[in-house]
Amino acid sequence: MRLNELSDESLHFRVQQLLAEYVEVIDDDRLEQWPELFVDDARYEVVPRENSDRGLPLAAMFCDSKGMLIDRVVSLRQANIYALHYHRHVLSNLRITQRSDAEVQAQCNFVVFQTRVQGETAIYSAGKYQDRIVATDGGLRFKEKRVIFDTYRIDSLMVRPL
Amino acid sequence: MRLNELSDESLHFRVQQLLAEYVEVIDDDRLEQWPELFVDDARYEVVPRENSDRGLPLAAMFCDSKGMLIDRVVSLRQANIYALHYHRHVLSNLRITQRSDAEVQAQCNFVVFQTRVQGETAIYSAGKYQDRIVATDGGLRFKEKRVIFDTYRIDSLMVRPL
Amino acid sequence: MRLNELSDESLHFRVQQLLAEYVEVIDDDRLEQWPELFVDDARYEVVPRENSDRGLPLAAMFCDSKGMLIDRVVSLRQANIYALHYHRHVLSNLRITQRSDAEVQAQCNFVVFQTRVQGETAIYSAGKYQDRIVATDGGLRFKEKRVIFDTYRIDSLMVRPL
Repeated sequence: MRLNELSDESLHFRVQQLLAEYVEVIDDDRLEQWPELFVDDARYEVVPRENSDRGLPLAAMFCDSKGMLIDRVVSLRQANIYALHYHRHVLSNLRITQRSDAEVQAQCNFVVFQTRVQGETAIYSAGKYQDRIVATDGGLRFKEKRVIFDTYRIDSLMVRPL
Repeated sequence: MRLNELSDESLHFRVQQLLAEYVEVIDDDRLEQWPELFVDDARYEVVPRENSDRGLPLAAMFCDSKGMLIDRVVSLRQANIYALHYHRHVLSNLRITQRSDAEVQAQCNFVVFQTRVQGETAIYSAGKYQDRIVATDGGLRFKEKRVIFDTYRIDSLMVRPL
Repeated sequence: MRLNELSDESLHFRVQQLLAEYVEVIDDDRLEQWPELFVDDARYEVVPRENSDRGLPLAAMFCDSKGMLIDRVVSLRQANIYALHYHRHVLSNLRITQRSDAEVQAQCNFVVFQTRVQGETAIYSAGKYQDRIVATDGGLRFKEKRVIFDTYRIDSLMVRPL
């Protein structure tokens, strides 16, 4: 796939499908497939909005290779202790903010809903994705994903990627 | 409309429009039109995620004909006693998972927000739709709709379809 | 841009992009750009669902020119006292309900999430947009925006546009 051959609408559609796949592997708890949506030297960071607005670098989670993403999943599966829960993402307002032949920049709002053992669903986190996406032989992949979250009080270990 | 003549993007757009109509008849309380979005021998079921994950058949709601859907609306209008409330759906992450000339399989996340007489809005249910959709002379219609919900504690009678 | 030259899909895409821009200027707190998305003699109103359903005219907010929209932003920036907070919109179920060469009518569901100084995110308002949109030299713009909200108990001054 060559990015510059796609119309704005087609590109938007494909980015949306990548995001839908991203959400699906998390919500369906197929986390082993989550790193596969990134390129090898991808950067993934989860940043509080306040830090992002002020240009402060501190991140709640930071990975700069696919290997680190795989590590996170292994640690979630084998090391972390946490109560059973489900996540459910809602994405909205997708916009392509820049595109070149090499790369697409896209952003959208997200809200993640969490259901715990008591069976009630609560807002877990709201915020915004800022993504840099590239075309590979396997389709579109994340080169960089910045998760900027509004909700800075999270009352449980942030084990699952946002 | 012949399904195999539609591009992936066009098909996605049309499925999205069917879902938007589906949501609208519920949220606008035009429930009499809700069964019209299904074919005559449609199957509609509302299943807890835990049961769905384990392959257990028990459903919170189960209908296997349009007649049963109509019955539910009649019973909601005439028999059930419940406090006035509004529902508001948000759908996200629509993905066509399979398509043939005869049928489309699609899934998306949903969250339903409920506003009660006190005027506050709360999360009523979060989960996922898994749909089988066919083309009819009147446009796309549901042949099967599986509503798989995360939120298994619901503090009111589930009168309104999800 | 001439509206009648656009396919249903292209029109839908462009309306969605206008809405995404609308949400972005509010959520990113770039409110000075918010009036720019309306034509000069635009009408903007925020109405409780109950009043809208009964045809009652009373609105929680009413502006009938771009100047009044600008006034609201100035007053929010300079006069209103309120606690720091973030807004995050989720839109869904966009449907074009009518289109002519001169104008598009569109509607969608919205939910606004608010994060306050304590760092927790709560549902601020849920409801529906009913929009009339026109093509200008600068792109699509709102000629009328009706925000019909379900959530009639809002525990803070409604300073920020919905």
